[in-house]
Amino acid sequence: MGTGVLLFLGNKESSINFKDNWYPYRQDSTFLYYFGLNLPGLHALIDLDSGKEIIFGDDLTLDEIVWTGPQPTIAEMSAKVGIKDTYTLDKMTAYLSHREVHYLPVYRPEHTVFMASLFNRSYAEIDLGYSLSFIKEVAAQRAVKSPEELSSLHEAASITSQIHLTLMQQAKAGMKEYELASRVRQVAHEQNVNISFQPIVTIEGQILHNHYYGNTLSGGDMLLCDAGAESSQLYAGDMTRTFPVDSTFSSLQKELYDVVHRSHLAAIAAMKPGIKFLDLHLLVCRILVEGLIEVGLMKGQPEEAVAAGAHTMFFQCGLGHMMGLDVHDMENLGEAHVGYNDQLKKSDAFGLKSLRLGKELASGYVVTVEPGIYIIPELIKKLKASGDYNDFINYSLLEKHADFGGIRIEDDFAITPDGAQLLGRPLASTSDDIESIRKAALS
Amino acid sequence: MGTGVLLFLGNKESSINFKDNWYPYRQDSTFLYYFGLNLPGLHALIDLDSGKEIIFGDDLTLDEIVWTGPQPTIAEMSAKVGIKDTYTLDKMTAYLSHREVHYLPVYRPEHTVFMASLFNRSYAEIDLGYSLSFIKEVAAQRAVKSPEELSSLHEAASITSQIHLTLMQQAKAGMKEYELASRVRQVAHEQNVNISFQPIVTIEGQILHNHYYGNTLSGGDMLLCDAGAESSQLYAGDMTRTFPVDSTFSSLQKELYDVVHRSHLAAIAAMKPGIKFLDLHLLVCRILVEGLIEVGLMKGQPEEAVAAGAHTMFFQCGLGHMMGLDVHDMENLGEAHVGYNDQLKKSDAFGLKSLRLGKELASGYVVTVEPGIYIIPELIKKLKASGDYNDFINYSLLEKHADFGGIRIEDDFAITPDGAQLLGRPLASTSDDIESIRKAALS
Repeated sequence: MGTGVLLFLGNKESSINFKDNWYPYRQDSTFLYYFGLNLPGLHALIDLDSGKEIIFGDDLTLDEIVWTGPQPTIAEMSAKVGIKDTYTLDKMTAYLSHREVHYLPVYRPEHTVFMASLFNRSYAEIDLGYSLSFIKEVAAQRAVKSPEELSSLHEAASITSQIHLTLMQQAKAGMKEYELASRVRQVAHEQNVNISFQPIVTIEGQILHNHYYGNTLSGGDMLLCDAGAESSQLYAGDMTRTFPVDSTFSSLQKELYDVVHRSHLAAIAAMKPGIKFLDLHLLVCRILVEGLIEVGLMKGQPEEAVAAGAHTMFFQCGLGHMMGLDVHDMENLGEAHVGYNDQLKKSDAFGLKSLRLGKELASGYVVTVEPGIYIIPELIKKLKASGDYNDFINYSLLEKHADFGGIRIEDDFAITPDGAQLLGRPLASTSDDIESIRKAALS
Repeated sequence: MGTGVLLFLGNKESSINFKDNWYPYRQDSTFLYYFGLNLPGLHALIDLDSGKEIIFGDDLTLDEIVWTGPQPTIAEMSAKVGIKDTYTLDKMTAYLSHREVHYLPVYRPEHTVFMASLFNRSYAEIDLGYSLSFIKEVAAQRAVKSPEELSSLHEAASITSQIHLTLMQQAKAGMKEYELASRVRQVAHEQNVNISFQPIVTIEGQILHNHYYGNTLSGGDMLLCDAGAESSQLYAGDMTRTFPVDSTFSSLQKELYDVVHRSHLAAIAAMKPGIKFLDLHLLVCRILVEGLIEVGLMKGQPEEAVAAGAHTMFFQCGLGHMMGLDVHDMENLGEAHVGYNDQLKKSDAFGLKSLRLGKELASGYVVTVEPGIYIIPELIKKLKASGDYNDFINYSLLEKHADFGGIRIEDDFAITPDGAQLLGRPLASTSDDIESIRKAALS
């Protein structure tokens, strides 16, 4: 990294509807990775010239301790994470003046305001002034998980697995989606951990960006739940299950579910260091198309259909993403440096532009695998009007099933030297096993 | 308000650990009050010169609707709340240029960044550039609740009451505080509403700023829960109950609980339009001191003790606050304009400086009443060392009970033309009624 100072901005409290009404606190993940302290009001730096590591923060006053009870000092907390040098926040400006300061892309407006004031620059300058070499070094380190990190990711995935089992056991016709979204949070909160992102809990699985929970579950629906918990060390879990509100899938639901599941297994079997995740994505697309041809919703040659992009009628998004302290790991550092690299740039084609990870896998990476089939009425109209995929899509049958919904199956994996290991407690994913759980739940 | 434009900034999504991982969305309360739309990406204005009311926002593109499903347009949503004029966001700069723009204090950094860019001013200028007359008009309107608002506040208080009853029924020795904090959220979430602030759920009720949930409940402890739900229209509830982990209070717990409860009843009986909330606070302080003298923890004359500030050993905070769309209603507008006025300024004495509401009550106000007794070891040391209250405090007995903890009882009230009305479903608050619930729960 040469000379100067590596600056690590710690997150502050985040206000809801007035300054002192706060959302639950979450530290910045890169700050956590290097400095381990999950509390607001801290910044840190590594001085490349002196070799010093410093945490900046202010101790509570005696007056404040009356309100908070006794608290460890910044120096005591820093010592616990191996940092000897601590300064009060008012020392930051002087420390950084006339230094070359490397910082990461800013994603919280509080930091834009803070940095603009610190360096007397405009917001636009702050937003564009991040250090590319700093990004690349952090992305390389955080991408490969240590045994301690993998253990924490296992913990997150096990709690996540428990969330999904709970929903499969408790969902019933007549319930509201928000009741089940509440159970997602409850499973995490009762173990003193948080959720890693706002859950998707919906009978309209084809709506990919969906945080509406107002629908009522009815017989014949499938419920899609995409949810995850954080571990106690704040690593993420992220899984999806899709199951029938009845005890069994309908015949078309089961056929398409099994197609998605077959593609899921194929991706898992093929995962290993050296393989491009882009190629796994394309493998999954081909298997999905083969299955859709069998069902009659597509036609033609699978390879040609995928090459033409016709699979994006059913699979509009990417096969998965990196995961770690962030559910989309290091998304704030930029996909170009996390999911891609100088050799492989992201495509801007519909479908591939939503693939967050394309580059070669390496041992120690942690990724999600989440193929799906989504039947989106608006997309049928749009693509039919374009006339692009007439050779590959059986529009007359597809339009009959325009209200089918969506299916996704998602698990989390660590890449090992010769393959991939499932994270967390294994959870039913075949249609038969899911129906067994539903039958037991509803009996 | 004269001439120019009244600007109402709508809240954006708030990022957790990367830009697109969001906290649950919450609209700004003043925006909700005047424009009623609880979704991100909107701003609004009232043009004082033309009389026009305008909402600025961008419709989803056809590409985005593939991901979100069909959504109403900005124009459709605006029409539902009675606004005919809508513009895209890129029209704001031109609309506001060369106009006198009145805006309210900014509490979210996203708005500081947005406004600084909009007006090409520094963030310090933006933070100080709010309109005092705009604040005063909004504070006057929002302070007096309409029948529709009162109905929503009743709903919030009833869900809140249910939260507290649930905790009284479910708490048991051996449980962790976080398990009960989870139940707080669950009661709200299962009814498709959110909590109005992060709950306090603690066996260390004397720690006034406490969002730590790691302690284990044991026999002999009291659990203090200060929590509230929002209504479906986003009005706040805010109640506190303190109850024994055993089925009964210890004798000292019961004595002090009854003192707090007596002060609570006295404040409620005295509440009516025209009375200063400051005077209710001082009434409560006197009753607390009388009770503490009976118990032997204080001595001397109650009036003199309160005049000297000796009650602040036990009651360090204020009796209550305004409540509405915010749990501390309009706190972002500034206490000087919400809880006080030009005739009555807030005291900066310890104790009174924490009283958020001092001014005369009026019919239609909604307030909390939350007296308490808190025994804070750090404060005993500090005040004893100061020597200030030797005439009023029995230090030898107090030091014996330094680990007593804290008690608070809080309910929500609407000020009526001749008194005050409890909001929400009534909930047990006498020591006898609380013990009855605990006995039934533990039997």
